[in-house]
Amino acid sequence: MEQARDFLIDRLGECTYPSPMQGTGFIDDRAHILLHSDLDTIRTYLDAGEEPPRFEAAGPRERLYFNPARVACGIVTCGGLCPGINNVIRSIVLSLHHHYGVDEVYGFPYGFEGLEPRYGHRPVHLTPELVEHIHEMGGTILGSSRGHQEVGRMVDTLARLGMSVLFCIGGDGTQRGALAIDAEAKRRGLKLSVIGIPKTIDNDISFMQTTFGFETAVSEARLATSAAHAEALGARNGVGLVKLMGRESGFIAASTVLVDNQVNFCLIPEARFTLEGLLTALERRLAERNHAVIVVAEGAGQELLPATNECDASGNVKLGDIGVFLRGRICAHFKEIGMELNLKYIDPSYMIRSRQANPHDSAFCLLMGHNAVHAAMSGRTGMIVGYWNHEFTHVPIALAVRERKRIDTGGRVWSSVLAATGQGTEIV
Amino acid sequence: MEQARDFLIDRLGECTYPSPMQGTGFIDDRAHILLHSDLDTIRTYLDAGEEPPRFEAAGPRERLYFNPARVACGIVTCGGLCPGINNVIRSIVLSLHHHYGVDEVYGFPYGFEGLEPRYGHRPVHLTPELVEHIHEMGGTILGSSRGHQEVGRMVDTLARLGMSVLFCIGGDGTQRGALAIDAEAKRRGLKLSVIGIPKTIDNDISFMQTTFGFETAVSEARLATSAAHAEALGARNGVGLVKLMGRESGFIAASTVLVDNQVNFCLIPEARFTLEGLLTALERRLAERNHAVIVVAEGAGQELLPATNECDASGNVKLGDIGVFLRGRICAHFKEIGMELNLKYIDPSYMIRSRQANPHDSAFCLLMGHNAVHAAMSGRTGMIVGYWNHEFTHVPIALAVRERKRIDTGGRVWSSVLAATGQGTEIV
Amino acid sequence: MEQARDFLIDRLGECTYPSPMQGTGFIDDRAHILLHSDLDTIRTYLDAGEEPPRFEAAGPRERLYFNPARVACGIVTCGGLCPGINNVIRSIVLSLHHHYGVDEVYGFPYGFEGLEPRYGHRPVHLTPELVEHIHEMGGTILGSSRGHQEVGRMVDTLARLGMSVLFCIGGDGTQRGALAIDAEAKRRGLKLSVIGIPKTIDNDISFMQTTFGFETAVSEARLATSAAHAEALGARNGVGLVKLMGRESGFIAASTVLVDNQVNFCLIPEARFTLEGLLTALERRLAERNHAVIVVAEGAGQELLPATNECDASGNVKLGDIGVFLRGRICAHFKEIGMELNLKYIDPSYMIRSRQANPHDSAFCLLMGHNAVHAAMSGRTGMIVGYWNHEFTHVPIALAVRERKRIDTGGRVWSSVLAATGQGTEIV
Amino acid sequence: MEQARDFLIDRLGECTYPSPMQGTGFIDDRAHILLHSDLDTIRTYLDAGEEPPRFEAAGPRERLYFNPARVACGIVTCGGLCPGINNVIRSIVLSLHHHYGVDEVYGFPYGFEGLEPRYGHRPVHLTPELVEHIHEMGGTILGSSRGHQEVGRMVDTLARLGMSVLFCIGGDGTQRGALAIDAEAKRRGLKLSVIGIPKTIDNDISFMQTTFGFETAVSEARLATSAAHAEALGARNGVGLVKLMGRESGFIAASTVLVDNQVNFCLIPEARFTLEGLLTALERRLAERNHAVIVVAEGAGQELLPATNECDASGNVKLGDIGVFLRGRICAHFKEIGMELNLKYIDPSYMIRSRQANPHDSAFCLLMGHNAVHAAMSGRTGMIVGYWNHEFTHVPIALAVRERKRIDTGGRVWSSVLAATGQGTEIV
Repeated sequence: MEQARDFLIDRLGECTYPSPMQGTGFIDDRAHILLHSDLDTIRTYLDAGEEPPRFEAAGPRERLYFNPARVACGIVTCGGLCPGINNVIRSIVLSLHHHYGVDEVYGFPYGFEGLEPRYGHRPVHLTPELVEHIHEMGGTILGSSRGHQEVGRMVDTLARLGMSVLFCIGGDGTQRGALAIDAEAKRRGLKLSVIGIPKTIDNDISFMQTTFGFETAVSEARLATSAAHAEALGARNGVGLVKLMGRESGFIAASTVLVDNQVNFCLIPEARFTLEGLLTALERRLAERNHAVIVVAEGAGQELLPATNECDASGNVKLGDIGVFLRGRICAHFKEIGMELNLKYIDPSYMIRSRQANPHDSAFCLLMGHNAVHAAMSGRTGMIVGYWNHEFTHVPIALAVRERKRIDTGGRVWSSVLAATGQGTEIV
Repeated sequence: MEQARDFLIDRLGECTYPSPMQGTGFIDDRAHILLHSDLDTIRTYLDAGEEPPRFEAAGPRERLYFNPARVACGIVTCGGLCPGINNVIRSIVLSLHHHYGVDEVYGFPYGFEGLEPRYGHRPVHLTPELVEHIHEMGGTILGSSRGHQEVGRMVDTLARLGMSVLFCIGGDGTQRGALAIDAEAKRRGLKLSVIGIPKTIDNDISFMQTTFGFETAVSEARLATSAAHAEALGARNGVGLVKLMGRESGFIAASTVLVDNQVNFCLIPEARFTLEGLLTALERRLAERNHAVIVVAEGAGQELLPATNECDASGNVKLGDIGVFLRGRICAHFKEIGMELNLKYIDPSYMIRSRQANPHDSAFCLLMGHNAVHAAMSGRTGMIVGYWNHEFTHVPIALAVRERKRIDTGGRVWSSVLAATGQGTEIV
Repeated sequence: MEQARDFLIDRLGECTYPSPMQGTGFIDDRAHILLHSDLDTIRTYLDAGEEPPRFEAAGPRERLYFNPARVACGIVTCGGLCPGINNVIRSIVLSLHHHYGVDEVYGFPYGFEGLEPRYGHRPVHLTPELVEHIHEMGGTILGSSRGHQEVGRMVDTLARLGMSVLFCIGGDGTQRGALAIDAEAKRRGLKLSVIGIPKTIDNDISFMQTTFGFETAVSEARLATSAAHAEALGARNGVGLVKLMGRESGFIAASTVLVDNQVNFCLIPEARFTLEGLLTALERRLAERNHAVIVVAEGAGQELLPATNECDASGNVKLGDIGVFLRGRICAHFKEIGMELNLKYIDPSYMIRSRQANPHDSAFCLLMGHNAVHAAMSGRTGMIVGYWNHEFTHVPIALAVRERKRIDTGGRVWSSVLAATGQGTEIV
Repeated sequence: MEQARDFLIDRLGECTYPSPMQGTGFIDDRAHILLHSDLDTIRTYLDAGEEPPRFEAAGPRERLYFNPARVACGIVTCGGLCPGINNVIRSIVLSLHHHYGVDEVYGFPYGFEGLEPRYGHRPVHLTPELVEHIHEMGGTILGSSRGHQEVGRMVDTLARLGMSVLFCIGGDGTQRGALAIDAEAKRRGLKLSVIGIPKTIDNDISFMQTTFGFETAVSEARLATSAAHAEALGARNGVGLVKLMGRESGFIAASTVLVDNQVNFCLIPEARFTLEGLLTALERRLAERNHAVIVVAEGAGQELLPATNECDASGNVKLGDIGVFLRGRICAHFKEIGMELNLKYIDPSYMIRSRQANPHDSAFCLLMGHNAVHAAMSGRTGMIVGYWNHEFTHVPIALAVRERKRIDTGGRVWSSVLAATGQGTEIV
């Protein structure tokens, strides 16, 4: 973890160009943010003669690694949609233009495919005019794709086009690809910076207190739980069942429950539940209150389902569909016990992830983009822009992808969810 | 059709109570709105010595059939959810209270079930305080159910509770039920008014230029087509496929296309299309533009599907799922021809119909409720509140349910849709 | 009024070019919409041997006056902002392109100024790409200005640039200017069509049941009344006072009250009120309920204010500020009588008129634009696109500007407002 | 500052009642969050043998100070409106009910007035049913007032009604009042807990990374800047001038600029600017780009205005109106230099602060309320619920009100704003 602080010292000595930014202040290279905010933990490190883990602070540097007059930059967007991608693209382009005078910015279409010549995609010149209004649209103007391309050939393309910087907007798979490109570029002695902007609507990347698009996703998810509640109230023994995103981490489901406290059961991958427990609790709830709302994260309860043994192009194991499974089992159960049930099933995923960024995420994406540009210009590479304790940071990709961020079921978030739903321990 | 004008003359002579409304003016009993606005059609009637068809104008009457000091009213809400139901309930309660001083207003829970004693539902006393904020929520505070109950037993309940008026908020099935109640009450010589407030998210009730909730539904549906567009642009050969409501009439689909002109194909029940035509047009579109958005009304293309031979509790034939069918066929086709395809399927129905009314529908529902109350107090019965040429009207239920309103594929709405999508005749 | 039907017969004989539109059907030149929907009125005309007044139906014609291969069109936007202007511009451009193959479309910047050479504004070539997303923004991409320019010089510009059509998006002043251009062009024997698209956020143009932007304006205005209500409730004897648009017609104020029924007093230009009456009623209301919400249209109560004797650039008399006046008088009065008062004054006008069109207005603007193009291509001129009985129509400008549409205080809209506020006759 | 950690140790020994909460985990009384996240600062404290400053962690405790079976609680809401007040009230009521079985919860109307008998306000019994939907409305259902009441008489009321806990939702003036009540109660030996929930739309309370309602305010403020931008583009030399909240701290203005990057000048209380500088920069901007958007916080540039020498009921100095001042000076200046100017001035304050909480703030308020209840039940008093490093904390009121949180003009937030506007140093 100590590398979180020191990984980029190599190039500091080569930062020879003065930054053209004026009047906005620069960040000292020693500025950092501690990982822990608990004194006992920090003391333990210090007592053992170790450095407590910490992140380098992001922000503009006084001296640059690249000559702004000669920089060309590329951007790729990979994986599924997430609110804010266009905002990040726009922010990178505008920051390069306004802060560094860099106008050679290219978007490679359809993710890493755009770097693989055999697809024949042509890079798009991203001008300030072209990106001016793109943040008002969801999706990504560059298009996206899943999966990797051959690293050598991607680096060939970057070298051939004289790229100094590659910004990779994507999830952990994408960031692993970015790291491979970085390694290959270093092996060839290319002066390249590879900067990751972590994109995960599930908010499951380590060392990021929140990721862009997450707040928007939760806002939109609430429309689904609110619909589920109206449907549940609208019929005798009405049940609204909502499946939300969250392959391995239930942050969207948990946060949505905190936003809309009319949810009665929240099922996430991190917290086991049994079908029997859920059905019993649901029976009781309907007997007492005539309606119920259930939120289930897509990765919850996978052990109840037969394994699919399939992967998508990104290499993610294909999950069984817990929403459809639960719908079936709940309906079957109530039929069996002869109790009327009116279940409505809602899967709003595509409507959530394709939304434009809300105001919070708009500002967040702007700063993500600015800090990605600052990091790149100062020669950082193999890193993502992180967010910790309300500050933007630099996090080595190797560290960020080591493990996924998950909800601690013994911690405060989950405890708040339990307090909000009152779902008790009956369903476990 | 002439009855549209004259159906309620019976009770006019019995309107002996002066209205307590003050300062807002009254509508003359002769006021009406012509069905046609084409001079040639009207002349044809006149030349034949016939009355051109017209509707009685809705609005407050100077003399009432019921004594406001002694009136008790009931409300039922039936069928699926639709934005604005709570607004109508609220408007009826507040109009009875403020305009007529009537405070005996009861909501019967879960539709016609609420009138059938064996369910044991208890009527809810609807006070101005209780309904004050209900319009800020979607759904129906009374709950709903599908299907009919035995007419005699429902009238027994109404008689036992001394109800003078029953407001029935529901679709054409509900209005037929309302008409049966009205007939039975007349047979028994009960002084009862049965007033229908037509609720159909599909906007398919005759003699209503628009129904409440429709504008809200279209607004929400646009979120789905907008998502579909972002998803379609976000991947190579991306296709966004959206299924919208519209069992027999494609008004939501058609209007959504006019709102969001990024839709390329609009499929509705009224306009035949062939699978081959659609697939060919889609191939061409993807080859030229790399993405496409398709909107399909749930009742479209039923002849392509095997018949379900099932009915729901309302007696509606259960439709085959055209959305899932098209998703399957499109994917299979492009696999067969070896062309990459990234199809995202969105079915937003429950999220649409459970929304609260938008401002337009809020005002519309307010006026629907007021006019329903005015009609009831003046003794009209067996009628629904209609809307024609920007005026509220009285329409006999028998006339309103005679046939469904559908899109004329030779008319201006559909022509505008074709002009907006440019889908041409290729898909027919 | 008969001219409403017949004004364009002159050029029908010269419509020699077949329309390139396919598969969407054409409108017969005899199709029309009656002004009245009351049989007695129509009979009166017929009995007198007169034609009942009616409008020509809008829509695509089979034969065109202009050769689509040679047409060049201009667009100007004049007067204050209104939601939907960009939608109309976009719709015109896309309809010309997709329906008629016309790509020579130019926007003249800053209203009629753009046609006056001395300002040096350069016309903007409006391509489908340029307008693709403009409807997602409020305002007008062309810019606007108030007031007229010298007609001869404007026609010089149109002639010099070889314009066949001028689309004028603006209020009644603008349409008078359009008519003058049309007259001058006729005098010179130019083949020019001048088509008005009536823009008035006040919804006060005659023979239009609604104008574009109005629904959006009312939706936004509700945010202001809702804020006023929260503020009024939030303090002892809280009063929320909202000034809304409506120089001579109170449609926005009236409709907003129907949307948000928490308004207690609605003051419009058409309905006189006295300061004493208002203050007395307010005192009573606060004594009984501790809070009140007042909506006042900007043109209401002008007789209470000293005349400004000023005009704006459009020639409109500058109104006294009734909102600020009422705020002052109400505060002074309650101070005088020693009663606590917490008044919050809200003037949301600029925030309303600059919003992007809501879904309803998006569809409405699309159809306005299409019908404006169809009218132009078929040689109509000196007309605006109207809307009557849910149909688009052609209305001669001379007729449309003859008098302003106002709320009939003896009619149903105002009666509904009085019923919703319960403001009674006390304030008169 | 050390007291931030230790202030409540007094009563720990008296926490003798087991918490009835089950299955959600408890927070250890030693849990804390460090103020600093910079290792060097922490080391400096440690090297000097001092405790680095830290906050006690909020959350449910295993043992309670009050017997839940005998607790009665009061709530007051003071000062101006802010999005989320009703959410906090609701969360407190529901947490007391569901987590501790406490049903004796009373709302005192109109702030501290509600505790002063001479006003005659009667406490409102806040039941779960009554608060169920209040979070869907802006404002405060309890009403509010500014200013203090006599402390002894307020404590008399609390003692007379047997209150164990008083929750004070309000700004720093309110919290000072809360502290005085706490001191007086201690002096009398009353077993009372006074818990503050800091409410400041300006986000200017120390030791809170963000306050409730702030995100909602920024979201709404963007509607104003977006309107200003549309207006500015809509006229030649258009200027949109928006006044936002921020008496002494410019957080709303600064964050709004990060959300809506179309703002060209951001003026806040913390950063001086000169009128000459602003006018010159504006001239240049209009000459180059024809339009500009200015955001000014209400407390900015006060030194340019004559002092008002007035205070409001809360004791806040009444600010001069910088928005109206700038409007006047800018218009005068451009008139003087003979340059056309179209300035539109927007002051959306009441529309912002009266909005209901957005999803982010809904969840935030829920947790604020829960943690306030947990703190109260465990006997904490004289504290506010804080938020630091994404964790809820306990902060002594004395510490929290010591100084206001302000934007560091040498720090990262302001630097980002300057980078986003590009306003440079010209205006200083």
